[in-house]
Amino acid sequence: MLRGRFSRPLDRAALALSESTAEDRRLIRADLWGSRAHARMLGEVGLLPVPSARRLDRGLAALERAVAAGRFRLDPRLEDVHLNVESELTRRLGEDGERLHTGRSRNDQVATDLLVYLREALLDLEERLGGLVGALLAASTGPAGRASVVGWTHLQPAQRVYVGQILGTHALRFLRDAERLRSIRERLTDCPLGSGALAGSSLPLDRARTAQLLGFARPSPSSLDAVSDRDASVEALAALALFSVHASGLAEELVLGAMPEVGRVRLADPFVTTSSLMPHKRNPDLAELIRAEAAPALGRLTAHLAMLKGLPLAYNRDLQVGKPLLFEGVARAQLVLDVLTPMIATATFLPGRPAAPRPDAETSSVELVDRLVARGVPFRAAHGRVAKFLAGPSVAGRALRALPRDLLSGAFPELGPEELAFPPEEEEAELRTTPGGSSRRAVERLVAEIRRRRGASRRALFAERRRLARWRRALDRPFPPVRRYRSQAHK
Amino acid sequence: MLRGRFSRPLDRAALALSESTAEDRRLIRADLWGSRAHARMLGEVGLLPVPSARRLDRGLAALERAVAAGRFRLDPRLEDVHLNVESELTRRLGEDGERLHTGRSRNDQVATDLLVYLREALLDLEERLGGLVGALLAASTGPAGRASVVGWTHLQPAQRVYVGQILGTHALRFLRDAERLRSIRERLTDCPLGSGALAGSSLPLDRARTAQLLGFARPSPSSLDAVSDRDASVEALAALALFSVHASGLAEELVLGAMPEVGRVRLADPFVTTSSLMPHKRNPDLAELIRAEAAPALGRLTAHLAMLKGLPLAYNRDLQVGKPLLFEGVARAQLVLDVLTPMIATATFLPGRPAAPRPDAETSSVELVDRLVARGVPFRAAHGRVAKFLAGPSVAGRALRALPRDLLSGAFPELGPEELAFPPEEEEAELRTTPGGSSRRAVERLVAEIRRRRGASRRALFAERRRLARWRRALDRPFPPVRRYRSQAHK
Amino acid sequence: MLRGRFSRPLDRAALALSESTAEDRRLIRADLWGSRAHARMLGEVGLLPVPSARRLDRGLAALERAVAAGRFRLDPRLEDVHLNVESELTRRLGEDGERLHTGRSRNDQVATDLLVYLREALLDLEERLGGLVGALLAASTGPAGRASVVGWTHLQPAQRVYVGQILGTHALRFLRDAERLRSIRERLTDCPLGSGALAGSSLPLDRARTAQLLGFARPSPSSLDAVSDRDASVEALAALALFSVHASGLAEELVLGAMPEVGRVRLADPFVTTSSLMPHKRNPDLAELIRAEAAPALGRLTAHLAMLKGLPLAYNRDLQVGKPLLFEGVARAQLVLDVLTPMIATATFLPGRPAAPRPDAETSSVELVDRLVARGVPFRAAHGRVAKFLAGPSVAGRALRALPRDLLSGAFPELGPEELAFPPEEEEAELRTTPGGSSRRAVERLVAEIRRRRGASRRALFAERRRLARWRRALDRPFPPVRRYRSQAHK
Amino acid sequence: MLRGRFSRPLDRAALALSESTAEDRRLIRADLWGSRAHARMLGEVGLLPVPSARRLDRGLAALERAVAAGRFRLDPRLEDVHLNVESELTRRLGEDGERLHTGRSRNDQVATDLLVYLREALLDLEERLGGLVGALLAASTGPAGRASVVGWTHLQPAQRVYVGQILGTHALRFLRDAERLRSIRERLTDCPLGSGALAGSSLPLDRARTAQLLGFARPSPSSLDAVSDRDASVEALAALALFSVHASGLAEELVLGAMPEVGRVRLADPFVTTSSLMPHKRNPDLAELIRAEAAPALGRLTAHLAMLKGLPLAYNRDLQVGKPLLFEGVARAQLVLDVLTPMIATATFLPGRPAAPRPDAETSSVELVDRLVARGVPFRAAHGRVAKFLAGPSVAGRALRALPRDLLSGAFPELGPEELAFPPEEEEAELRTTPGGSSRRAVERLVAEIRRRRGASRRALFAERRRLARWRRALDRPFPPVRRYRSQAHK
Repeated sequence: MLRGRFSRPLDRAALALSESTAEDRRLIRADLWGSRAHARMLGEVGLLPVPSARRLDRGLAALERAVAAGRFRLDPRLEDVHLNVESELTRRLGEDGERLHTGRSRNDQVATDLLVYLREALLDLEERLGGLVGALLAASTGPAGRASVVGWTHLQPAQRVYVGQILGTHALRFLRDAERLRSIRERLTDCPLGSGALAGSSLPLDRARTAQLLGFARPSPSSLDAVSDRDASVEALAALALFSVHASGLAEELVLGAMPEVGRVRLADPFVTTSSLMPHKRNPDLAELIRAEAAPALGRLTAHLAMLKGLPLAYNRDLQVGKPLLFEGVARAQLVLDVLTPMIATATFLPGRPAAPRPDAETSSVELVDRLVARGVPFRAAHGRVAKFLAGPSVAGRALRALPRDLLSGAFPELGPEELAFPPEEEEAELRTTPGGSSRRAVERLVAEIRRRRGASRRALFAERRRLARWRRALDRPFPPVRRYRSQAHK
Repeated sequence: MLRGRFSRPLDRAALALSESTAEDRRLIRADLWGSRAHARMLGEVGLLPVPSARRLDRGLAALERAVAAGRFRLDPRLEDVHLNVESELTRRLGEDGERLHTGRSRNDQVATDLLVYLREALLDLEERLGGLVGALLAASTGPAGRASVVGWTHLQPAQRVYVGQILGTHALRFLRDAERLRSIRERLTDCPLGSGALAGSSLPLDRARTAQLLGFARPSPSSLDAVSDRDASVEALAALALFSVHASGLAEELVLGAMPEVGRVRLADPFVTTSSLMPHKRNPDLAELIRAEAAPALGRLTAHLAMLKGLPLAYNRDLQVGKPLLFEGVARAQLVLDVLTPMIATATFLPGRPAAPRPDAETSSVELVDRLVARGVPFRAAHGRVAKFLAGPSVAGRALRALPRDLLSGAFPELGPEELAFPPEEEEAELRTTPGGSSRRAVERLVAEIRRRRGASRRALFAERRRLARWRRALDRPFPPVRRYRSQAHK
Repeated sequence: MLRGRFSRPLDRAALALSESTAEDRRLIRADLWGSRAHARMLGEVGLLPVPSARRLDRGLAALERAVAAGRFRLDPRLEDVHLNVESELTRRLGEDGERLHTGRSRNDQVATDLLVYLREALLDLEERLGGLVGALLAASTGPAGRASVVGWTHLQPAQRVYVGQILGTHALRFLRDAERLRSIRERLTDCPLGSGALAGSSLPLDRARTAQLLGFARPSPSSLDAVSDRDASVEALAALALFSVHASGLAEELVLGAMPEVGRVRLADPFVTTSSLMPHKRNPDLAELIRAEAAPALGRLTAHLAMLKGLPLAYNRDLQVGKPLLFEGVARAQLVLDVLTPMIATATFLPGRPAAPRPDAETSSVELVDRLVARGVPFRAAHGRVAKFLAGPSVAGRALRALPRDLLSGAFPELGPEELAFPPEEEEAELRTTPGGSSRRAVERLVAEIRRRRGASRRALFAERRRLARWRRALDRPFPPVRRYRSQAHK
Repeated sequence: MLRGRFSRPLDRAALALSESTAEDRRLIRADLWGSRAHARMLGEVGLLPVPSARRLDRGLAALERAVAAGRFRLDPRLEDVHLNVESELTRRLGEDGERLHTGRSRNDQVATDLLVYLREALLDLEERLGGLVGALLAASTGPAGRASVVGWTHLQPAQRVYVGQILGTHALRFLRDAERLRSIRERLTDCPLGSGALAGSSLPLDRARTAQLLGFARPSPSSLDAVSDRDASVEALAALALFSVHASGLAEELVLGAMPEVGRVRLADPFVTTSSLMPHKRNPDLAELIRAEAAPALGRLTAHLAMLKGLPLAYNRDLQVGKPLLFEGVARAQLVLDVLTPMIATATFLPGRPAAPRPDAETSSVELVDRLVARGVPFRAAHGRVAKFLAGPSVAGRALRALPRDLLSGAFPELGPEELAFPPEEEEAELRTTPGGSSRRAVERLVAEIRRRRGASRRALFAERRRLARWRRALDRPFPPVRRYRSQAHK
């Protein structure tokens, strides 16, 4: 640990509370990338002798390989990833390792690491969300998607809809989640590196150069902000909480649909479990766990916001508490997506156990109202008459379409015979042809819209990955010919 | 209340739990606008006789005037704003009032109302945030902004910075908040109206037309989603929670700065209070309240997400709980802004009570390290030597700049006399000339950047307001010549 | 508003942010009671002339009557309940009104008010919870309670249980909630009054006397704690959040049970609603709202804790944010109880829609395992054999009890004919006779246990109410003969 | 993993989402204890042959030793601690291992494990809290505790108090936390074991016996409740959140007190850190981290409540998400206590940097008011006169005690010379002699009260530990003579 001016070491429990090596392993690749960019810039502007910069760069590249091979473990006694890297580098390179931190503070370093990490994490989540959207669209447009079920409001029978619209609606939500993550990612443009502890540096650092090498658009505009801003973490946790809420809604429908009483879905064996006691059980544990995951997701968001509340400028150590919240949030969302996608892809969607006719399950009731309206009956009056009719004794547990015609025409003399005919229930959804409605045509348009937006997202995602890979490779190029690099930072 | 098929009224306590008239008064303007667009469309497509549509339109316009004049109060026995309006309209117009709800459900209606409300609320908040940013910039660029103070990390003396950079940094955060709200607002493009209860309608509604009349870009693509989606509310609450956290950070600095021990700010009398017991007191209550407001702001976000967790499609009554959370969130943020802006504008910023020199308050320490680095000493070694030197007995509570030159040159023989001279503390911030750093030049650039972005935000905001006002006024134009309007919805 | 040393009034928006009259109306009775105790004590110890104390007392009593009659409204310009009362008293009594605040601060006053308020609120909630427990027990022991249904785990068929056990289990949870509230209430023993702004007083206040007159056991032991401690509010909000979670679980079962597919409950008409569009609808809105209420309940708890986080001693204005959270929490819990209790009392519980036999719905499977175990087959092996048997092709959608005997004895040759007979499904729950299990006898014991504890709670509750009423009335007795009351506070 | 009726394994990602071995290591000791009690009971009632029960018991005891020696690692492929133990036992003992789960489900098993774990965790936390209270009392009663400082309200100078009262007040809060944990622990009386999956068992289990062997008072009264109730976890997380808020308040005072501007505390070197860039820094990182820990603590509570919201009876897999929340909550609280206690014990408390006299820092102002009151001036009038006097020009930055006598007597002619004399500031706290007030005598009483209650807590804690150890050892006694144990469970 870094003790500088102190002669006594940190208290043992204090070290345990303050060290962050367990979570920092998620940052190590970002940290090494950042250090390579910093070292190269130091060499370019002459703050390091070029040979030192070269040695540092090679040493960091060797560490990257060690990390990739699982041969570099963070030592908790060295507190965090930053001191672990500096210490290992110094062990390997001697004095040059001690030059790496020139003009830098852990404050701007960790802020930079977090953004680089988050950018990768968001790209990864966008891609996985695209996979889930794809699985939902596939199910939506397959034969099961073309079957109709009773649509629920308040979990009560409302009107019939196609399974494809239900699945497409979930796809739409996850697509929005992906777009939301993308828009967060596209605002990660300002590089904190070079902001020092809080106030920048009096060394001629070239911040534009490190920003560029790390794939950012520009250096951040205020050092006080750069070292303490955690907006991006909060935005990501908020978007992930909302995603997890969407996932929990879909999971709830899977849990309900898998009830034998409901019978709308059969999850494939690799996604159900049995009981340690009851051998007959077929439990949708995975769907339950996905439903539950929304709870810690919102807990993490709450925790991060509560941690930030009331913090004065600039860096405060409280910020450390945010790191594991972010990392855990990303990792759990990845896991949820990795389960949900094949669970959907392998599930069998069924039309549901047929319900006995009941007056409060009469999904055609609005048709009757609308036909009265077409005959000039004011809507509210028509609604009232149908309500009373359905609740009345003459219906007695029969569906509208099964009622004797004269019973209907007695109650609704305005309507002619063709207006008293109701389509078979599996064609009911077809009647509602408004855009966005339940008809097959409308569902096809929904699917087309999702496909279009999903395609655009994927193209943007891959373009960004290529861009970043280019900058990443730029660091492997030999140093430019030695020159007094003309710093753009200090004119 | 709407009892339709039931012969018995809702239980009294049940009505108290379920009615929403107190919060719905925030929706009434949006609700009336939505109803006017709906009625006009019904007339245009021939679902209402044109004279009926005209009477409805005039009746709704009269209600708008009654609302504006404070002459229309919502009756809790009528549950919500929607039934209150329909009931009052029917009282005034008779049968035509009963036609208003044709092809509509409260589910798509409230979803539409919420988006119209939110769009206005976001515009309003963006404008108020612009006002706060302006106040901070004004203070930042005034004489007090040009003074320097000891910058803190961990609330300990770190390096000197200008007050202008501190205030500019807060301005930058609030500017980001405004930009975040704007980006939420710009995604409010899809109009739910016409989605019915969950599945659209078999009537030839023209959803594109109502979307247009309400200032949206298009009808929403899935009715199941439209009636149950509350993403926009969550996004707004998340952005407001983050704003409130930013406000709490600034408030904390005002509270700390107002301590006599610290002496960095004097709040104007209209923003301080006294004690009911202690007559000498001058308390920063308003800053404390703003600090505290972040807590309910995050509580509201948490509550909204928890409410949504695990809800199946489509509409569930749980959603009602989200309305007061959103309305309260907006109203409290408005209030915080209304206080914070003049509080900043009238505050006096001071350079702080001078601290006695202490080794752990030596804000020039990094300069000494950097000069050693410039002489080739590896950074970590230089850092260690300065640390030991400052903690050692020879410094003894004197500032670096006050130490005898030979003491310094004895400890740091690499450095020449000019490298052992330290600028007066009020010029120290000037040394850190990196972009985004503490120098005056860097602060000026920061201010210029904020000004530019704030200007762009304002222009966009006013353009959007003009656009919406145009559509609002479109409803006051006479109906188009009677024709069988050719519905675009059902081809 | 109290401006003391300031010549300028509080800023208008600042007043709007800081005034608390809307929520303070919940405190007014507690505040007046506290003021009467304080005034009497001041008279007793000679800090007020006895005639002044008497006039104050009578003035406060008159205000109590005005409040009861709805004739005293709090004026927001006077900030809070405390200044409203003092101001009104001064208007009525002149100079004596100005004497009321002697030796007191709003800090100890509001802390006292909160505890007095909370004590009443907890008693009230305990009583209402007792009512709900009673309604559940009544349903549990009625004929519907003696019917059996398929018990769920993971919402999948597990084993059959009596409806009475389900309802009794919910009763048990609410009983625990009541006991939890009671234990919070019983720790409200320390009276903050007399703690001043933060440090007590140099006047000879008799804190033991005011504590006694307000029904507390003793004065609080540290003034710094007394004015800033909000533990009781947090404890109450936590207990109410847990209650609301219990209520949400019961509500979820009502929502699920009311699905036609499930058919386990029919809510009475006064607790269901219909749709503005779909006339057939019978929606369990109230159950949904109760399910949803858990979300703001946990949001309030979160908000209160986040507000307290990081507050230094002693009083900070942030604490004000806690008041509406507490009041709202109490009021919403009351409302939930007022709806849930009659909703349960009027609901019809049904045995559920019979499910078609399916291998994964075989609620007798454990019986078969246990009989194999009784024959010496190791449990895990028995479990495995039954699992494979049920999932195998020979069962083919038939219930165990409907299988040909020789099919069973072929698969389980260890078992004799009587061991291969399964009771009819409505008697299955009777088999599990372990204490706490599903048999009728066990359910009766559960009910008896709940009755016993509920009775004890009620007796304690009424005893406490009588005790408090006695002290309340003590204030209406004439002042003791004038004497220099010997303060017990300052020896 | 347990696949029973399924021929295909669980999906790989599904296993990763559902397995809980990482957190379950905290349960292993409780799980083994529970299994030993269960096996012994099975032997006693004749459900297992006594030799099998003995072998199981010895096998479990051997596993306990393996765990203690760190030689037993949980395999994630076996999902959880329960299946890991059963599998290992079966590997070692063969068929007898397969008998262990007789009459038991993981549902009652994990519920039991959680309570046994929690009981230990609470005892441990109570003890550590006692340690912190002791450290605060020691500092409170030492020489530093007898010094006085300016007490703050709103972080503004209010009245002087002794450091001992401040520290004693924090001790009082942590003592309440310990008492709160104890009261949660004392309600952990009902043993879930024997509740089966949800409905008990038809085997003649003796639940009273396992309850006894595990140190509980009785079996739980409803199996449906026992397997799904997580009240105790929520209560513990709520109490820990409140503790963490108390710790954050103390931490905030340490952070503020360590500011050179304030100068009230110097933390010992093992509890401060330096900066990677600024060699002069002496940062209170540990105090900041403790301040921040309140945020995840409340996040965990929020998450647990949100997870439980809306869950129907009985067991649902969502409950698994609660385990790591609880374990993490306990572990972080332990760590906070392990740091805070020695940090307090080694800190140096100082009287604070003397402030220049300012009218708004006049801590004697109430004395002047009270003396006017004693002369018959109504309190509010006296308050107003002193307020105006202090804010007026004649005081001009002088302390009351430093003002010329005639200036005072001119303004306050009612007061005689002795009433216009103010004690030196270090004796001011002595004036407020009300119980609980700032005088030394009052502080001594506070300390005595805390000592008394802390002693009682410690005695109860150790008594409980002895009681549990006795039952723990009871399992090591040889089995009772073989007999058909007369089950008390089924009469």
